[in-house]
Amino acid sequence: MDETWRPDPDRHLSLLFDVFALGQRVRTLVALAMAGSELRPDEYAAYSVVFESPGITMTAMARELGMPVTTAADYVRAMQRRGHVRREHHPHDSRSYVLSLTPAGRSAHRAASTAFQRAHRALLDALAPLTEETVRGQLAAVADGADRAMDTVRRRRTVIPHEATRP
Amino acid sequence: MDETWRPDPDRHLSLLFDVFALGQRVRTLVALAMAGSELRPDEYAAYSVVFESPGITMTAMARELGMPVTTAADYVRAMQRRGHVRREHHPHDSRSYVLSLTPAGRSAHRAASTAFQRAHRALLDALAPLTEETVRGQLAAVADGADRAMDTVRRRRTVIPHEATRP
Repeated sequence: MDETWRPDPDRHLSLLFDVFALGQRVRTLVALAMAGSELRPDEYAAYSVVFESPGITMTAMARELGMPVTTAADYVRAMQRRGHVRREHHPHDSRSYVLSLTPAGRSAHRAASTAFQRAHRALLDALAPLTEETVRGQLAAVADGADRAMDTVRRRRTVIPHEATRP
Repeated sequence: MDETWRPDPDRHLSLLFDVFALGQRVRTLVALAMAGSELRPDEYAAYSVVFESPGITMTAMARELGMPVTTAADYVRAMQRRGHVRREHHPHDSRSYVLSLTPAGRSAHRAASTAFQRAHRALLDALAPLTEETVRGQLAAVADGADRAMDTVRRRRTVIPHEATRP
Protein backbone atom coordinates (compact mmCIF):
# COMPACT_ATOMS: atom_id res chain seq x y z
CA MET A 1 0.00 0.00 0.00
CA ASP A 2 2.89 2.38 -0.01
CA GLU A 3 3.83 1.97 -3.64
CA THR A 4 3.09 5.66 -3.96
CA TRP A 5 5.30 6.69 -1.05
CA ARG A 6 8.09 8.98 -2.20
CA PRO A 7 10.88 10.52 -0.12
CA ASP A 8 10.11 13.99 1.17
CA PRO A 9 12.33 16.34 -0.87
CA ASP A 10 12.94 18.44 2.27
CA ARG A 11 14.62 15.62 4.12
CA HIS A 12 18.18 16.17 5.26
CA LEU A 13 19.79 12.85 4.52
CA SER A 14 23.37 13.31 3.38
CA LEU A 15 25.90 12.00 0.92
CA LEU A 16 27.11 9.70 3.69
CA PHE A 17 23.61 8.25 3.91
CA ASP A 18 23.53 7.76 0.14
CA VAL A 19 26.81 5.83 0.23
CA PHE A 20 25.42 3.62 3.01
CA ALA A 21 22.16 2.95 1.16
CA LEU A 22 23.99 2.28 -2.12
CA GLY A 23 26.24 -0.23 -0.36
CA GLN A 24 23.17 -1.95 1.10
CA ARG A 25 21.42 -1.94 -2.26
CA VAL A 26 24.37 -3.52 -4.05
CA ARG A 27 24.75 -6.02 -1.23
CA THR A 28 21.08 -6.96 -1.65
CA LEU A 29 21.57 -7.33 -5.42
CA VAL A 30 24.64 -9.55 -5.03
CA ALA A 31 23.00 -11.60 -2.26
CA LEU A 32 20.03 -12.19 -4.57
CA ALA A 33 22.28 -13.38 -7.39
CA MET A 34 24.45 -15.44 -5.00
CA ALA A 35 21.57 -17.11 -3.13
CA GLY A 36 22.64 -20.69 -2.36
CA SER A 37 26.32 -19.86 -2.83
CA GLU A 38 28.87 -20.89 -0.17
CA LEU A 39 30.09 -17.27 0.27
CA ARG A 40 28.23 -14.14 1.35
CA PRO A 41 28.71 -11.00 -0.78
CA ASP A 42 31.11 -9.42 1.76
CA GLU A 43 33.08 -12.67 2.01
CA TYR A 44 33.29 -12.81 -1.76
CA ALA A 45 34.83 -9.31 -1.72
CA ALA A 46 37.45 -10.42 0.83
CA TYR A 47 38.26 -13.60 -1.15
CA SER A 48 38.52 -11.53 -4.35
CA VAL A 49 41.21 -9.24 -2.92
CA VAL A 50 43.39 -12.22 -1.97
CA PHE A 51 42.59 -14.02 -5.23
CA GLU A 52 43.60 -11.02 -7.34
CA SER A 53 46.70 -10.17 -5.26
CA PRO A 54 48.27 -13.37 -3.97
CA GLY A 55 50.97 -12.58 -1.39
CA ILE A 56 49.08 -9.53 -0.11
CA THR A 57 49.62 -8.45 3.50
CA MET A 58 46.73 -8.05 5.94
CA THR A 59 47.36 -4.28 6.06
CA ALA A 60 47.10 -3.94 2.30
CA MET A 61 44.04 -6.21 2.23
CA ALA A 62 42.34 -4.02 4.85
CA ARG A 63 43.17 -0.89 2.86
CA GLU A 64 41.74 -2.39 -0.33
CA LEU A 65 38.55 -3.34 1.49
CA GLY A 66 38.30 0.06 3.20
CA MET A 67 38.09 -1.52 6.64
CA PRO A 68 40.16 -1.50 9.84
CA VAL A 69 42.85 -4.20 10.00
CA THR A 70 41.02 -5.82 12.92
CA THR A 71 37.93 -6.31 10.73
CA ALA A 72 39.97 -7.70 7.82
CA ALA A 73 41.58 -10.09 10.33
CA ASP A 74 38.10 -11.41 11.22
CA TYR A 75 37.54 -12.32 7.57
CA VAL A 76 40.95 -13.98 7.33
CA ARG A 77 40.24 -16.06 10.45
CA ALA A 78 36.96 -17.27 8.93
CA MET A 79 38.81 -18.15 5.71
CA GLN A 80 41.45 -20.02 7.73
CA ARG A 81 38.78 -22.03 9.58
CA ARG A 82 37.53 -23.23 6.18
CA GLY A 83 41.07 -24.02 5.04
CA HIS A 84 40.68 -21.41 2.29
CA VAL A 85 43.67 -19.17 2.97
CA ARG A 86 47.37 -19.75 3.61
CA ARG A 87 49.47 -17.39 5.78
CA GLU A 88 53.22 -17.32 5.11
CA HIS A 89 55.98 -15.14 6.53
CA HIS A 90 56.56 -11.97 4.55
CA PRO A 91 59.72 -12.52 2.45
CA HIS A 92 61.22 -9.19 3.62
CA ASP A 93 59.67 -8.80 7.08
CA SER A 94 59.49 -11.81 9.37
CA ARG A 95 57.08 -10.02 11.75
CA SER A 96 54.51 -9.86 8.98
CA TYR A 97 52.47 -12.38 6.99
CA VAL A 98 51.35 -12.61 3.41
CA LEU A 99 48.11 -14.26 2.35
CA SER A 100 47.10 -16.44 -0.57
CA LEU A 101 44.12 -18.68 -1.32
CA THR A 102 44.55 -22.43 -1.02
CA PRO A 103 43.27 -24.64 -3.86
CA ALA A 104 40.05 -25.11 -1.84
CA GLY A 105 39.80 -21.33 -1.39
CA ARG A 106 40.28 -20.69 -5.11
CA SER A 107 37.65 -23.31 -5.84
CA ALA A 108 35.11 -21.65 -3.47
CA HIS A 109 35.89 -18.27 -5.04
CA ARG A 110 35.43 -19.67 -8.56
CA ALA A 111 32.10 -21.31 -7.65
CA ALA A 112 30.75 -18.06 -6.18
CA SER A 113 32.12 -16.08 -9.10
CA THR A 114 29.55 -17.40 -11.58
CA ALA A 115 26.67 -16.12 -9.47
CA PHE A 116 28.50 -12.87 -8.75
CA GLN A 117 28.99 -12.25 -12.47
CA ARG A 118 25.21 -12.41 -12.98
CA ALA A 119 24.80 -9.45 -10.62
CA HIS A 120 27.72 -7.63 -12.24
CA ARG A 121 26.37 -8.09 -15.76
CA ALA A 122 22.83 -7.06 -14.72
CA LEU A 123 24.18 -3.87 -13.13
CA LEU A 124 26.31 -2.95 -16.15
CA ASP A 125 23.31 -3.51 -18.45
CA ALA A 126 21.15 -1.33 -16.20
CA LEU A 127 23.72 1.47 -16.09
CA ALA A 128 24.25 1.69 -19.87
CA PRO A 129 25.07 4.03 -21.56
CA LEU A 130 27.18 4.87 -18.49
CA THR A 131 30.30 2.73 -18.69
CA GLU A 132 31.83 0.78 -15.82
CA GLU A 133 35.02 2.84 -16.21
CA THR A 134 33.15 6.13 -15.80
CA VAL A 135 31.28 5.00 -12.70
CA ARG A 136 34.40 3.45 -11.14
CA GLY A 137 36.17 6.76 -11.67
CA GLN A 138 33.37 8.62 -9.88
CA LEU A 139 33.42 6.18 -6.98
CA ALA A 140 37.22 6.38 -6.76
CA ALA A 141 36.98 10.15 -6.30
CA VAL A 142 34.59 9.66 -3.38
CA ALA A 143 36.79 6.92 -1.88
CA ASP A 144 39.84 9.18 -2.09
CA GLY A 145 37.82 11.93 -0.41
CA ALA A 146 36.83 9.52 2.36
CA ASP A 147 40.50 8.63 2.92
CA ARG A 148 41.46 12.30 3.20
CA ALA A 149 38.47 12.96 5.48
CA MET A 150 39.63 10.12 7.76
CA ASP A 151 43.03 11.79 8.04
CA THR A 152 41.30 15.06 9.01
CA VAL A 153 39.08 13.41 11.62
CA ARG A 154 42.07 11.50 13.06
CA ARG A 155 44.22 14.63 13.25
CA ARG A 156 41.49 16.46 15.14
CA ARG A 157 41.10 13.55 17.51
CA THR A 158 44.84 13.55 18.38
CA VAL A 159 43.99 16.43 20.70
CA ILE A 160 42.23 13.80 22.82
CA PRO A 161 45.11 11.59 24.08
CA HIS A 162 43.58 8.09 24.40
CA GLU A 163 42.17 8.12 20.88
CA ALA A 164 45.37 9.29 19.22
CA THR A 165 46.89 5.92 18.37
CA ARG A 166 43.87 4.41 16.70
CA PRO A 167 45.08 3.11 13.32
CA MET B 1 56.32 -1.98 5.64
CA ASP B 2 53.87 -2.05 2.77
CA GLU B 3 53.47 1.69 2.37
CA THR B 4 54.72 1.18 -1.17
CA TRP B 5 52.21 -1.54 -2.02
CA ARG B 6 49.95 -0.51 -4.87
CA PRO B 7 47.08 -2.45 -6.44
CA ASP B 8 48.07 -4.44 -9.49
CA PRO B 9 46.48 -2.61 -12.45
CA ASP B 10 45.68 -5.96 -14.08
CA ARG B 11 43.40 -7.03 -11.26
CA HIS B 12 39.81 -7.79 -12.15
CA LEU B 13 37.92 -6.29 -9.26
CA SER B 14 34.63 -4.81 -10.44
CA LEU B 15 32.35 -1.86 -9.94
CA LEU B 16 30.47 -4.00 -7.41
CA PHE B 17 33.69 -4.39 -5.44
CA ASP B 18 34.26 -0.63 -5.56
CA VAL B 19 30.79 0.03 -4.14
CA PHE B 20 31.47 -2.45 -1.33
CA ALA B 21 34.86 -0.93 -0.49
CA LEU B 22 33.47 2.61 -0.65
CA GLY B 23 30.69 1.63 1.76
CA GLN B 24 33.27 0.13 4.13
CA ARG B 25 35.50 3.19 3.83
CA VAL B 26 32.66 5.59 4.65
CA ARG B 27 31.56 3.34 7.50
CA THR B 28 35.11 3.45 8.90
CA LEU B 29 35.14 7.25 8.57
CA VAL B 30 31.79 7.65 10.34
CA ALA B 31 32.74 5.12 13.04
CA LEU B 32 35.92 7.12 13.69
CA ALA B 33 33.97 10.37 14.06
CA MET B 34 31.24 8.65 16.12
CA ALA B 35 33.57 6.76 18.50
CA GLY B 36 31.96 6.82 21.95
CA SER B 37 28.52 7.56 20.51
CA GLU B 38 25.50 5.49 21.55
CA LEU B 39 24.69 4.56 17.93
CA ARG B 40 26.74 2.70 15.32
CA PRO B 41 26.98 4.27 11.85
CA ASP B 42 24.45 1.82 10.37
CA GLU B 43 22.06 2.39 13.27
CA TYR B 44 22.40 6.13 12.78
CA ALA B 45 21.31 5.64 9.15
CA ALA B 46 18.23 3.69 10.24
CA TYR B 47 17.32 6.29 12.90
CA SER B 48 17.80 9.07 10.33
CA VAL B 49 15.24 7.61 7.94
CA VAL B 50 12.58 7.48 10.67
CA PHE B 51 13.63 10.88 12.02
CA GLU B 52 13.32 12.52 8.60
CA SER B 53 10.09 10.73 7.64
CA PRO B 54 7.96 10.25 10.76
CA GLY B 55 5.03 7.94 10.00
CA ILE B 56 7.06 5.90 7.50
CA THR B 57 6.14 2.24 6.95
CA MET B 58 8.66 -0.55 7.38
CA THR B 59 8.48 -1.28 3.64
CA ALA B 60 9.35 2.31 2.74
CA MET B 61 12.08 2.38 5.39
CA ALA B 62 13.64 -0.77 3.93
CA ARG B 63 13.50 0.71 0.43
CA GLU B 64 15.22 3.91 1.59
CA LEU B 65 17.95 1.90 3.29
CA GLY B 66 18.37 -0.41 0.28
CA MET B 67 17.84 -3.51 2.40
CA PRO B 68 15.35 -6.38 2.58
CA VAL B 69 12.33 -5.69 4.85
CA THR B 70 13.51 -8.49 7.17
CA THR B 71 16.80 -6.65 7.75
CA ALA B 72 15.06 -3.31 8.34
CA ALA B 73 12.81 -5.13 10.83
CA ASP B 74 15.93 -6.19 12.79
CA TYR B 75 16.91 -2.53 13.16
CA VAL B 76 13.39 -1.58 14.24
CA ARG B 77 13.36 -4.34 16.87
CA ALA B 78 16.67 -3.04 18.31
CA MET B 79 15.20 0.49 18.37
CA GLN B 80 12.10 -0.82 20.13
CA ARG B 81 14.18 -2.59 22.79
CA ARG B 82 15.77 0.79 23.60
CA GLY B 83 12.36 2.48 23.65
CA HIS B 84 13.48 4.65 20.72
CA VAL B 85 10.70 3.94 18.20
CA ARG B 86 6.93 3.87 18.33
CA ARG B 87 4.83 1.61 16.07
CA GLU B 88 1.26 2.71 15.34
CA HIS B 89 -1.38 1.29 13.05
CA HIS B 90 -1.28 2.74 9.56
CA PRO B 91 -4.14 5.26 9.29
CA HIS B 92 -5.40 3.71 6.02
CA ASP B 93 -4.31 0.09 6.41
CA SER B 94 -4.86 -1.62 9.75
CA ARG B 95 -2.62 -4.58 8.74
CA SER B 96 0.34 -2.24 8.51
CA TYR B 97 2.33 -0.09 10.95
CA VAL B 98 3.93 3.29 10.75
CA LEU B 99 7.07 4.23 12.66
CA SER B 100 8.22 7.35 14.46
CA LEU B 101 10.98 8.10 16.96
CA THR B 102 10.04 8.53 20.61
CA PRO B 103 11.45 11.56 22.50
CA ALA B 104 14.26 9.25 23.76
CA GLY B 105 14.91 8.11 20.17
CA ARG B 106 15.07 11.70 18.89
CA SER B 107 17.43 12.55 21.71
CA ALA B 108 19.77 9.62 20.86
CA HIS B 109 19.66 10.63 17.19
CA ARG B 110 20.47 14.25 18.04
CA ALA B 111 23.38 13.26 20.29
CA ALA B 112 24.90 11.07 17.56
CA SER B 113 24.22 13.72 14.95
CA THR B 114 26.95 16.08 16.23
CA ALA B 115 29.62 13.42 15.73
CA PHE B 116 28.13 12.35 12.41
CA GLN B 117 28.28 15.94 11.14
CA ARG B 118 32.04 15.99 11.77
CA ALA B 119 32.46 13.12 9.32
CA HIS B 120 30.07 14.73 6.85
CA ARG B 121 31.85 18.10 6.94
CA ALA B 122 35.29 16.45 6.62
CA LEU B 123 34.12 14.48 3.57
CA LEU B 124 32.60 17.54 1.86
CA ASP B 125 35.80 19.52 2.48
CA ALA B 126 37.88 16.66 1.05
CA LEU B 127 35.67 16.36 -2.06
CA ALA B 128 35.73 20.06 -2.96
CA PRO B 129 35.48 21.42 -5.61
CA LEU B 130 33.07 18.53 -6.28
CA THR B 131 29.74 19.48 -4.69
CA GLU B 132 27.59 17.21 -2.54
CA GLU B 133 24.78 17.62 -5.08
CA THR B 134 26.96 16.40 -7.95
CA VAL B 135 28.21 13.35 -6.08
CA ARG B 136 24.73 12.49 -4.75
CA GLY B 137 23.47 12.63 -8.34
CA GLN B 138 26.18 10.22 -9.47
CA LEU B 139 25.40 7.81 -6.62
CA ALA B 140 21.66 8.04 -7.34
CA ALA B 141 22.30 6.88 -10.91
CA VAL B 142 24.16 3.81 -9.61
CA ALA B 143 21.44 3.13 -7.01
CA ASP B 144 18.75 3.30 -9.70
CA GLY B 145 20.83 0.93 -11.81
CA ALA B 146 21.10 -1.47 -8.87
CA ASP B 147 17.30 -1.41 -8.45
CA ARG B 148 16.78 -2.23 -12.13
CA ALA B 149 19.46 -4.92 -11.96
CA MET B 150 17.63 -6.49 -8.99
CA ASP B 151 14.46 -6.65 -11.08
CA THR B 152 16.41 -8.39 -13.85
CA VAL B 153 18.02 -10.92 -11.52
CA ARG B 154 14.65 -11.62 -9.84
CA ARG B 155 12.90 -12.08 -13.18
CA ARG B 156 15.56 -14.52 -14.37
CA ARG B 157 15.33 -16.48 -11.15
CA THR B 158 11.58 -16.97 -11.56
CA VAL B 159 11.91 -18.24 -15.13
CA ILE B 160 14.84 -20.59 -14.71
CA PRO B 161 15.54 -21.40 -11.11
CA HIS B 162 19.03 -22.87 -11.41
CA GLU B 163 22.12 -22.03 -13.42
CA ALA B 164 20.70 -21.46 -16.88
CA THR B 165 20.95 -17.66 -16.74
CA ARG B 166 24.76 -17.65 -16.73
CA PRO B 167 25.85 -14.75 -18.94
